[in-house]
Amino acid sequence: MSVRVGILGATGAVGQRFIQLLEDHPTFELAALTASESSAGKSYREAAKWRVNTPIPDDVAEMTVGATTPADVPDDVDLLFSSLPSGVAADVEPDFLEAGYVVSSNSSNDRMAPDVPLTIPEINPGHLDLIEVQREQRGWDGALVKNPNCSTITMVPTLAALDQFGLEAVQVSTLQAVSGAGYSGVTSMEIIDNAIPHINGEDDKMETESRKLLGAFDGAALELHGMDVSASCNRIPTLDGHLENVFAETAEDVSTEEAAAAMREYPSADLHSSPDPLIHVFDDFDRPQPRLDRERGDGMQISAGGLQETTNGVQYNCLAHNTIRGAAGASVLNGELLVEEGWV
Amino acid sequence: MSVRVGILGATGAVGQRFIQLLEDHPTFELAALTASESSAGKSYREAAKWRVNTPIPDDVAEMTVGATTPADVPDDVDLLFSSLPSGVAADVEPDFLEAGYVVSSNSSNDRMAPDVPLTIPEINPGHLDLIEVQREQRGWDGALVKNPNCSTITMVPTLAALDQFGLEAVQVSTLQAVSGAGYSGVTSMEIIDNAIPHINGEDDKMETESRKLLGAFDGAALELHGMDVSASCNRIPTLDGHLENVFAETAEDVSTEEAAAAMREYPSADLHSSPDPLIHVFDDFDRPQPRLDRERGDGMQISAGGLQETTNGVQYNCLAHNTIRGAAGASVLNGELLVEEGWV
Amino acid sequence: MSVRVGILGATGAVGQRFIQLLEDHPTFELAALTASESSAGKSYREAAKWRVNTPIPDDVAEMTVGATTPADVPDDVDLLFSSLPSGVAADVEPDFLEAGYVVSSNSSNDRMAPDVPLTIPEINPGHLDLIEVQREQRGWDGALVKNPNCSTITMVPTLAALDQFGLEAVQVSTLQAVSGAGYSGVTSMEIIDNAIPHINGEDDKMETESRKLLGAFDGAALELHGMDVSASCNRIPTLDGHLENVFAETAEDVSTEEAAAAMREYPSADLHSSPDPLIHVFDDFDRPQPRLDRERGDGMQISAGGLQETTNGVQYNCLAHNTIRGAAGASVLNGELLVEEGWV
Amino acid sequence: MSVRVGILGATGAVGQRFIQLLEDHPTFELAALTASESSAGKSYREAAKWRVNTPIPDDVAEMTVGATTPADVPDDVDLLFSSLPSGVAADVEPDFLEAGYVVSSNSSNDRMAPDVPLTIPEINPGHLDLIEVQREQRGWDGALVKNPNCSTITMVPTLAALDQFGLEAVQVSTLQAVSGAGYSGVTSMEIIDNAIPHINGEDDKMETESRKLLGAFDGAALELHGMDVSASCNRIPTLDGHLENVFAETAEDVSTEEAAAAMREYPSADLHSSPDPLIHVFDDFDRPQPRLDRERGDGMQISAGGLQETTNGVQYNCLAHNTIRGAAGASVLNGELLVEEGWV
Repeated sequence: MSVRVGILGATGAVGQRFIQLLEDHPTFELAALTASESSAGKSYREAAKWRVNTPIPDDVAEMTVGATTPADVPDDVDLLFSSLPSGVAADVEPDFLEAGYVVSSNSSNDRMAPDVPLTIPEINPGHLDLIEVQREQRGWDGALVKNPNCSTITMVPTLAALDQFGLEAVQVSTLQAVSGAGYSGVTSMEIIDNAIPHINGEDDKMETESRKLLGAFDGAALELHGMDVSASCNRIPTLDGHLENVFAETAEDVSTEEAAAAMREYPSADLHSSPDPLIHVFDDFDRPQPRLDRERGDGMQISAGGLQETTNGVQYNCLAHNTIRGAAGASVLNGELLVEEGWV
Repeated sequence: MSVRVGILGATGAVGQRFIQLLEDHPTFELAALTASESSAGKSYREAAKWRVNTPIPDDVAEMTVGATTPADVPDDVDLLFSSLPSGVAADVEPDFLEAGYVVSSNSSNDRMAPDVPLTIPEINPGHLDLIEVQREQRGWDGALVKNPNCSTITMVPTLAALDQFGLEAVQVSTLQAVSGAGYSGVTSMEIIDNAIPHINGEDDKMETESRKLLGAFDGAALELHGMDVSASCNRIPTLDGHLENVFAETAEDVSTEEAAAAMREYPSADLHSSPDPLIHVFDDFDRPQPRLDRERGDGMQISAGGLQETTNGVQYNCLAHNTIRGAAGASVLNGELLVEEGWV
Repeated sequence: MSVRVGILGATGAVGQRFIQLLEDHPTFELAALTASESSAGKSYREAAKWRVNTPIPDDVAEMTVGATTPADVPDDVDLLFSSLPSGVAADVEPDFLEAGYVVSSNSSNDRMAPDVPLTIPEINPGHLDLIEVQREQRGWDGALVKNPNCSTITMVPTLAALDQFGLEAVQVSTLQAVSGAGYSGVTSMEIIDNAIPHINGEDDKMETESRKLLGAFDGAALELHGMDVSASCNRIPTLDGHLENVFAETAEDVSTEEAAAAMREYPSADLHSSPDPLIHVFDDFDRPQPRLDRERGDGMQISAGGLQETTNGVQYNCLAHNTIRGAAGASVLNGELLVEEGWV
Repeated sequence: MSVRVGILGATGAVGQRFIQLLEDHPTFELAALTASESSAGKSYREAAKWRVNTPIPDDVAEMTVGATTPADVPDDVDLLFSSLPSGVAADVEPDFLEAGYVVSSNSSNDRMAPDVPLTIPEINPGHLDLIEVQREQRGWDGALVKNPNCSTITMVPTLAALDQFGLEAVQVSTLQAVSGAGYSGVTSMEIIDNAIPHINGEDDKMETESRKLLGAFDGAALELHGMDVSASCNRIPTLDGHLENVFAETAEDVSTEEAAAAMREYPSADLHSSPDPLIHVFDDFDRPQPRLDRERGDGMQISAGGLQETTNGVQYNCLAHNTIRGAAGASVLNGELLVEEGWV
């Protein structure tokens, strides 16, 4: 079975990652690329400054880029991936939904909307049924699903594994790679021999999105998880891979061994892009490290290490590839779930 | 008044910082340099591979280096600064103490010994009176005072300022510079485009030393502060300056403004190397940053920023220069306190 | 004697360096700051995002920024420093010259104009007399002097020292710091774990400017030096300090010792900002290095090292601080020469 | 056909690259691993600190490591790859040669010996016949072939392509990655925000090895190429990939287009690890770049770009992966040639 897919915002950094991930995908066939008006009508090779570390697939290079409007996307495209800037996405995603498209979006707008599923397939696949609520409320035939922010998605699988012990509070510090800010988001003068202890809006995303992802959905409404989350987000001079230090407080006592076992045994999803196991747990205290571990599971696996009991829970480190598992790969995986569950 | 001082372990990275800090010091006159046997008898210029960013003072370059034994230190030297590797220090510091020297040491051995003052002059100057206990127990005429680890000293002044609100627990994540591991401690292959989520022994130092520094001393014994401290220490590709994310839980409610005011008003010490104010608090969320702020107060000031209320306390960032305030400068400042209090 | 000076383009990276260098200058009194229309009327503190590593001088912070037009510069200002983008400078510098101002400019426009002196005070002070030609041809009362590009100025003093041996050809490769491209000129994604073997227009600047700087001026016209220069310019992940590998072919044989002596003995200028000696020559093969040596002579000294005879000349390395000796400091030094020679 | 091979010095950085490259090799079957006495008898997993970015092959992990003596290598091993430190190699390689082994060695000892072939299969495969001379002179049954230094091998293929225009002189500046110095060869304190304009012995290796590689072999003796080579070698903060700026003087005029065509058309070798084409020539001026281009051709392709005519030749940049094409991959490729030519 083949599903024809398109990419909204195909020329940017995440757009390029989508193209890289869709090359040789067993189910998805790339059939549409959109970008800004100034790129419309050009070949993709002309429109994009290609910067990822594998060549542009020849057939993609010759595709014609359309404008980001439903009129420029063929009707037989079934699924759209969106990596538009959130301001643009807030404007144009509704047009595609009203035109009946299913949209798996990495853009940050609407992630916390009560009727929009914020989904990690291995963690909360059932939240996808919020689409029913969404269609009823919005009156459109399309379906909008979001994946969380790159810093959130790095931590949440490990928290999901620990929630059996009763998560009560989480303090998390992040050491985030520069690619998370986009190709030009961090200048070299800002970050060489330096670190920046603030990323605009990022603390809040981690604090709210993680509670939605682990929240309970009763078929009608979604209740946020009751845990208290405090985040402190930092940018460091690393290219790819977000490393995070987590202090998790649990209602029940949890030993280092129990925490490690819970992570190791947390199930993967039966989808093409889901790694097995979902979480690789290191016994070494000095792992995971961004450069050594970000490519695990083709960039889709979560790594954890440094587990230690604390007075009221457990502390540990976790890591994921921020532009694969944390962006394009997350949307593709949500697309695979949408197909599996029959929404496409 | 002039005090003749010596440096034990004068050729290493911290030893070079001592020399840099003692150049033009108003009170301390450098009169002795020691190093390993292989350097003894050489001029300092021959013995040391000088790597700090100011030239070797001419008179120091021509001084003859002695071995690290009391026999090689002139009797009229009153105060010794020690930057020996901790294993070496554990062996030879007692020889100097038994010979009657006052030693202000940056080495990590004996920091947690019940009769050894672990001192930051602006924080716990009264702990110096542990020297009485020490002399009685050890039977020596000398006096040994230690300064804390670089990662501990970055955080403790801010905690001291907040303790009026009843500190109950602290979670801290560090982003530490490579110079903290010594000149050859971190290879370039380990750290370029990377971060390492573990520094051997560092979590434990932060957890225990901070409780001693804020502990109560009744003239006979020192009781550790009751707060619970959990630390997660990381190495990042930064040359100098440790940045730390602190989550502090307090018994009383504390607003962002109250926390900032407490830090800003925390008193400095009336000593040559103590900056005024002790803590510089930024209103900007994206400060302090290592490269921009590590030189504040000639490397002796603590910077803080990003203060925010949390459910049960306050979170913030702090920063200090790890080889000045966190090592050589800390020992020199302790030396100034020893003089001021009449121990030298 | 005090000279009132202004800065055109005062809010940018080089503009901030001008302010830093003019603080405590013995002769120059800062009396005017200009920037783009959008900054006009604001205090400097409001208008500039201050990023250099010393605080904004308090009195400068409170100065009001004007637009970059003669109308916004007080009449009693005698000398203007320009760090405008070259496109803007090409438009507005003539307005100031027609209004009678003396302009010492770091902008790249007009550097190769036959009637504009391109000057390094220690190298070709006599070229300043081109101002006579310039006034005659342009019909203005002002005077325009340019300093060379940062990569050119790093190499030319060493070439000037070697020209006594008959310079015939030069091949030079540069390892240039990111600050040379301006604060936002190089993104972190471009340069971390990387190098870029091209800087737009830079090869040509080195090849032409160096021949003008070492050219002969007979009072009427300037003849370019006859040497053949080939440059290959690279950007590397370094913050400040351009390092260059030079292969110089000379008509006469030159030994390593003769080349070193020629550099060491090359005279400095008797001006406030000129270092003495002009060129510091290292005997060590592994120096100069950007981080260790860029601050020599307050960032105004040229360093050289690694001298070796080749079949037809000599090869060596040289280094200078690109935003001090290579930009703002170069213009200030030219300003000092303009005062000394009576043009101001 | 399968050839049983061994690795001398299998636990080091280059040794690990050998293992990585031999996994799935169509001809070579890994049958012996040696290391220092202290590792002998251990499993490879125990003996090596594995640091390359793919997992240890399971079967290799369980192999027992021997000491580096002929006694510890099975008799049915036909070919040995050597990545021993050059001092050790000088001592022990003769033992293996006297025992009759064919050794393809990356170690720098004996590279310039007149009877030892220094070979790049695409450039000078005929030099392999020096083995006849070697056997006669040394009286052993084995055969020793060397590959050149990583900085030499990056440049020589491009020079080989240009030699049809009559190479007379070469000036080359290198921007070399830290991995070239081994895992611990460059400390982070040395290289962050810095560059080092000297690599011990490297200038000389480039100057002599390149003349041997392009030299003429008449069946009895090898005559060095007559070109004059001057090299200036620099270390920069890049992990892998040596970038080099070459100024080549030629007897005949050569246009940019002719030089590019000569490189593009230079033939590859019909061997498993030889890329096709051998040299990828970029039209873009800002390529090749280390991080973007080092992986081309599985790390075995040479990249070139920035070609420009000069007064007496051509200047350009070239790049290769220093630990693949410049070390382990070079030895493996020489091994493939040894098999192809019937020496194994």
